[in-house]
Amino acid sequence: MNFRELIVVAAIAVNVTAQAQSSNRATLAVHQWLTEHEARILQQFTTLLSIPNVASGHENILRNADLLKSMLQKRGIDARLLTLEGANPIVFGEIGTPNAKRTIVFYAHYDGQPVTPSEWEGNAPFTPVIRKVNGEDRIYARSASDDKGAIMAQLAALDALRAAQIRFRSNIRFVWEGEEEAGSPHLEAILNAHHDLVHGDVWLVCDGPVDQSGQQTVVFGARGDTHLEITIFGAIRGLHSGHYGNWAPNPAMMLTQLLAGMKDQEGNVLIPQFYDGVLPLGNLEKQAIAEAPVNDGALRQELGLGHVDGGGKKLLDLLNLPTLNINGMAAANVGARANNVIPSRAVADLDLRLVVGEHWQEQQKRVIDYVRSQGYFVVDSEPSREVLLAHPRVAMVKGDDFSYDAVRTPMDLPIAKEVIEAVESARGKVVKWPTMGGSVPLGAMERAANTHTITVPIANHDNNQHSSNENLRLQNLWDGIETMVALMQME
Amino acid sequence: MNFRELIVVAAIAVNVTAQAQSSNRATLAVHQWLTEHEARILQQFTTLLSIPNVASGHENILRNADLLKSMLQKRGIDARLLTLEGANPIVFGEIGTPNAKRTIVFYAHYDGQPVTPSEWEGNAPFTPVIRKVNGEDRIYARSASDDKGAIMAQLAALDALRAAQIRFRSNIRFVWEGEEEAGSPHLEAILNAHHDLVHGDVWLVCDGPVDQSGQQTVVFGARGDTHLEITIFGAIRGLHSGHYGNWAPNPAMMLTQLLAGMKDQEGNVLIPQFYDGVLPLGNLEKQAIAEAPVNDGALRQELGLGHVDGGGKKLLDLLNLPTLNINGMAAANVGARANNVIPSRAVADLDLRLVVGEHWQEQQKRVIDYVRSQGYFVVDSEPSREVLLAHPRVAMVKGDDFSYDAVRTPMDLPIAKEVIEAVESARGKVVKWPTMGGSVPLGAMERAANTHTITVPIANHDNNQHSSNENLRLQNLWDGIETMVALMQME
Repeated sequence: MNFRELIVVAAIAVNVTAQAQSSNRATLAVHQWLTEHEARILQQFTTLLSIPNVASGHENILRNADLLKSMLQKRGIDARLLTLEGANPIVFGEIGTPNAKRTIVFYAHYDGQPVTPSEWEGNAPFTPVIRKVNGEDRIYARSASDDKGAIMAQLAALDALRAAQIRFRSNIRFVWEGEEEAGSPHLEAILNAHHDLVHGDVWLVCDGPVDQSGQQTVVFGARGDTHLEITIFGAIRGLHSGHYGNWAPNPAMMLTQLLAGMKDQEGNVLIPQFYDGVLPLGNLEKQAIAEAPVNDGALRQELGLGHVDGGGKKLLDLLNLPTLNINGMAAANVGARANNVIPSRAVADLDLRLVVGEHWQEQQKRVIDYVRSQGYFVVDSEPSREVLLAHPRVAMVKGDDFSYDAVRTPMDLPIAKEVIEAVESARGKVVKWPTMGGSVPLGAMERAANTHTITVPIANHDNNQHSSNENLRLQNLWDGIETMVALMQME
Repeated sequence: MNFRELIVVAAIAVNVTAQAQSSNRATLAVHQWLTEHEARILQQFTTLLSIPNVASGHENILRNADLLKSMLQKRGIDARLLTLEGANPIVFGEIGTPNAKRTIVFYAHYDGQPVTPSEWEGNAPFTPVIRKVNGEDRIYARSASDDKGAIMAQLAALDALRAAQIRFRSNIRFVWEGEEEAGSPHLEAILNAHHDLVHGDVWLVCDGPVDQSGQQTVVFGARGDTHLEITIFGAIRGLHSGHYGNWAPNPAMMLTQLLAGMKDQEGNVLIPQFYDGVLPLGNLEKQAIAEAPVNDGALRQELGLGHVDGGGKKLLDLLNLPTLNINGMAAANVGARANNVIPSRAVADLDLRLVVGEHWQEQQKRVIDYVRSQGYFVVDSEPSREVLLAHPRVAMVKGDDFSYDAVRTPMDLPIAKEVIEAVESARGKVVKWPTMGGSVPLGAMERAANTHTITVPIANHDNNQHSSNENLRLQNLWDGIETMVALMQME
């Protein structure tokens, strides 16, 4: 009996009502089918992962969308692409259930983060391979975990339910987005244009990782997200560091001095008003955090971290605060390609996460005001030589328009309790997070579909999402399929 | 009459002694020959520039060395390669002059800085092209100015002298190095192994740019140089900036905070003892700086600099102080390839220039001590996970072993005065710099060849050396040839 089977047995032991017993019989049938069809699921998953899916690659995005539409159609589901001029299509599917009391929408996204193939070890990002890590199989490819894994789990759940001859009790809809990693620039507009199709009593957002303990997690919100790219200018051409050193300003040094002042040594943001407006957690939310596993020590070991930020607060608490993070930084070259130059410019990409009570435009403005307060003349496009000459210090700050605010769904809503119950029927006791640290455009979904959102992630926490060597632990895929089966049976 | 001819006429007007008149007759003959052979010189120069010459590319380095040896031999000069296990060869040539009182050694280097072809505009770095800039022709290629241009000037000077049937009065030697841009790691050892060949009364170091005014310059020293690469570590893999932001330390932010404290807002280095030991300039040196053109305002305009470092001191004064400069900086990716990650590591390459009175080992140590004082455990190779876990902050600092100290030759030596006189006979009044900002391994030359060094650069100041789009203004090549002719006639 493997770990997965133990969990199923534990779930049976925990749920003793008649409905739960019925549900568990179905779960066992599904589990049996699943065990026999792992190879076929992996074959389909590999095909899906082999199509590049960076949101800016329009042709490949369409190949992904067409494949997903056909995968739904082959399962007898009414599927189509929801399109909008200039947008990547949403793959939409619908299962109508006579006399259903409720409509449940499953959201996931089929696009993935940009890739740097040279940073991948052992396989190219769109050439999926399965490798053992600590004795467990994982599949390595861009979007294996973020977020094609969730889509594959939903597709396999449909197969399992059909094989087990289990009928749906609600209307089921699928909304699979194609530009989430690009900031979901058109999501709200497409949803608005198709309000009747995408409306639902609840949107189940299948994205992100589960708790680092490995326990199934249900999440009631996500941080908002916005970006700023800051470029600092030196001379209009790179200068010999010997012939001009001490005289020509070094934009890399200027950038470090600008960025260094944004945080203290414990990671607290020093930009004025950065934490203003943050809505404190309620009692239920605080209780959920108190009950959640504390993985901080194990994580520090796993990640090789000799210290952590946050002044002693634990990770789950810190995820309920806004962040300022340097995603990347560059000036001239380093290592073997380094030259004896004073770079001409230096760039940093910043990622600002938001929590409920803050607004991304305002948060961007706080950072820009801070840059100004440090003596910079701020422009939003390439400055001319005249502009550079007219100001001692010039910073180009480009904001990300495709940003959004944070969302938190109250944990005491009836639908919230029912989702928890459904997931626990398949997977045992779940971890409840008031918010996830990552960002999903929940606000756009809630506004356009007039609904609540609850996030049910399936990926292992150490999946390298947004980095090279992204992967999904196969056990998380099998568990995820069973989670999806349970959610699709909700009444 | 073009600018070059004007200069020649000015030189004639200035020098009225008999010897100067004789010298000027020769100069005019040379000038005449040169005007008729520009195309042939450019053809040879293009061939030379077409061979890649990054010091680490051994095969191409040998192709450069063989070509240069044959170019000397075709001119009837006894030439050979001076070699040492693991070193790029020195191209050596010798012209023995019966009854010569003096031996003059012409130093240049045939290797060039590393290249990043994608940063070059209009031509690949080893595909030379001639383009007009502000109505003047320039040749664009790696090493056009640094330092194959000087070698070409010396070769063409030999042709011109032969054509004008001018005899040498001294022994002339050529030492052309093949790893100067890699820090001259073997120069001293090769020179020591061939002391008899390389000894001379003076080494004329033909490297670097002339004064920004365009006037011919004679330089009496060079700053020393050493490098440090600092790597700061975060988690052992890149982390999702949402799921770990506020908790996992960001090595890019840590690096900015470390570097930012190394300098104040005016560019003064704050590292303790950084300026200790600096030998002040003497009266002759101060006078030379006072007499030199002040190009700072024009340079600021040209370079688009809204402010300069140095607290009001002028460029020439600042070149006589040590520097700390960020050559390059990197963490994860920026721009279109940026991801929502907390980078796993952040790197900065630092370049430290030294002046007389400081020693590079000590200067490296001052920086490393500073890193330690900021709470870092410093290692010199990749730290294990155990090391990362055992210390709150870990920095890997790799020093450059191929470093050297600064050198200044007294400006009142007889040979110094004679070199100035020879150059002025061809080019009119020269600018005298006590030191150049850039670095040349003058110390290794002086120790191994038991000689003095005086630097006679020929390149235009805006030659983009050490950067993309390196170029040599052709007029600087023609002027440089005449300068070399004058120096080769020294008695």
